Amino acid sequence: MKVVVAKDILKANDQIAADNLARCDRAGTYTVNILGSPGAGKTSLLERLAVHLPADVKPAAIEGDLATSRDAERIQALGWPTVQINTGGGCHLDANMVAAGLDELNLEDIDLLFIDNVGNLVCTASYKLGERLRIVVLSITEGDEKVIKYPPMFQRADVVVFNKTDLLPYTDFDLQRAKNDAKHLHSATEFFEVSARTGAGVDVLADWLVHQQAQWAAASHR
Amino acid sequence: MKVVVAKDILKANDQIAADNLARCDRAGTYTVNILGSPGAGKTSLLERLAVHLPADVKPAAIEGDLATSRDAERIQALGWPTVQINTGGGCHLDANMVAAGLDELNLEDIDLLFIDNVGNLVCTASYKLGERLRIVVLSITEGDEKVIKYPPMFQRADVVVFNKTDLLPYTDFDLQRAKNDAKHLHSATEFFEVSARTGAGVDVLADWLVHQQAQWAAASHR
Repeated sequence: MKVVVAKDILKANDQIAADNLARCDRAGTYTVNILGSPGAGKTSLLERLAVHLPADVKPAAIEGDLATSRDAERIQALGWPTVQINTGGGCHLDANMVAAGLDELNLEDIDLLFIDNVGNLVCTASYKLGERLRIVVLSITEGDEKVIKYPPMFQRADVVVFNKTDLLPYTDFDLQRAKNDAKHLHSATEFFEVSARTGAGVDVLADWLVHQQAQWAAASHR
Repeated sequence: MKVVVAKDILKANDQIAADNLARCDRAGTYTVNILGSPGAGKTSLLERLAVHLPADVKPAAIEGDLATSRDAERIQALGWPTVQINTGGGCHLDANMVAAGLDELNLEDIDLLFIDNVGNLVCTASYKLGERLRIVVLSITEGDEKVIKYPPMFQRADVVVFNKTDLLPYTDFDLQRAKNDAKHLHSATEFFEVSARTGAGVDVLADWLVHQQAQWAAASHR
């Protein structure tokens, strides 16, 4: 009997993710994987970011959900090219699904591609999709101990965005503790504090993202 | 090549879950599987429930987490028999892990056993553990559209507990919409509205749980 082990599945996924990355590189598309719990505010953050992106940066999104096209409808309303991927109950996007999503987009016309992953603080962490940057959105209302309780997610995060900071006064969330724990898991992690509801702090994140994309584009001689 | 399909894994799991259930039945232990997103407030709810359980009902808990024993320490502080299961990165508890947890408990001395699952609104839904009752904790701050976006979880819920109702004024969560959507997925679902932070509504849930356990015990001629 042959047993399919997770490691082999992940190896196959990583190969397709590398293909996705190469494809985006050829097209000049900088891809950002956005991860977090259900309701962390991933889609709301994209809606707010849209306001702060300069006119010459062309965004798009791939929306991952078990069911419905609610999130894609929200992003499409921003005027962005949008693809909805329904996993049919699956708990994460994989590189294969994203490859199918890329087929539906005109990458040559996209500078910043956001992949709005399934709400899941565990399984999504293991699957590379072909992204240049990985952002974990952690909402204040989830509690500051989530960082140490879900280490794989934070070990692999380039950026942690603390969302729902407007609710900080009503919780006992300790931002410094969460940051310390995240740094302990991955010393290079960048932090941003935002409220997708009020818009606070989203401009700073938008500027930083645009800068990352521009630096990458310059380094690739675009 | 043999491909191990999810259905077979779930079938094997269901058999072990049936064994767990029979084992708890023999001991007179009514078992409750508590599910929800990271930070929904599952452990906080248990802490509050502890206050409202009558002295003659003996509780215990199995705590499931990827890492740390934070939650088990919180429950142990209540004086409950407690077992921590670390999944080592795994995204859900399965019946096998719970069987190992049952080995560590004196079931004959436990009336109500809570299984505090890994924070995950997707994967945990598929795994029966041997429970008599399945409670999904959904926090107000996650957003009311989570019900239709994560249907497998709500199709299999006996009870939905809306938590963090103290934050209702600061969100646009529509309780009626969430209940309608949940009823559409599973018409027999019971609803409770609580704040594990302030304690509001937890007494009603505690009374109902104790009543369920007593009814079940009476029906089993205990």
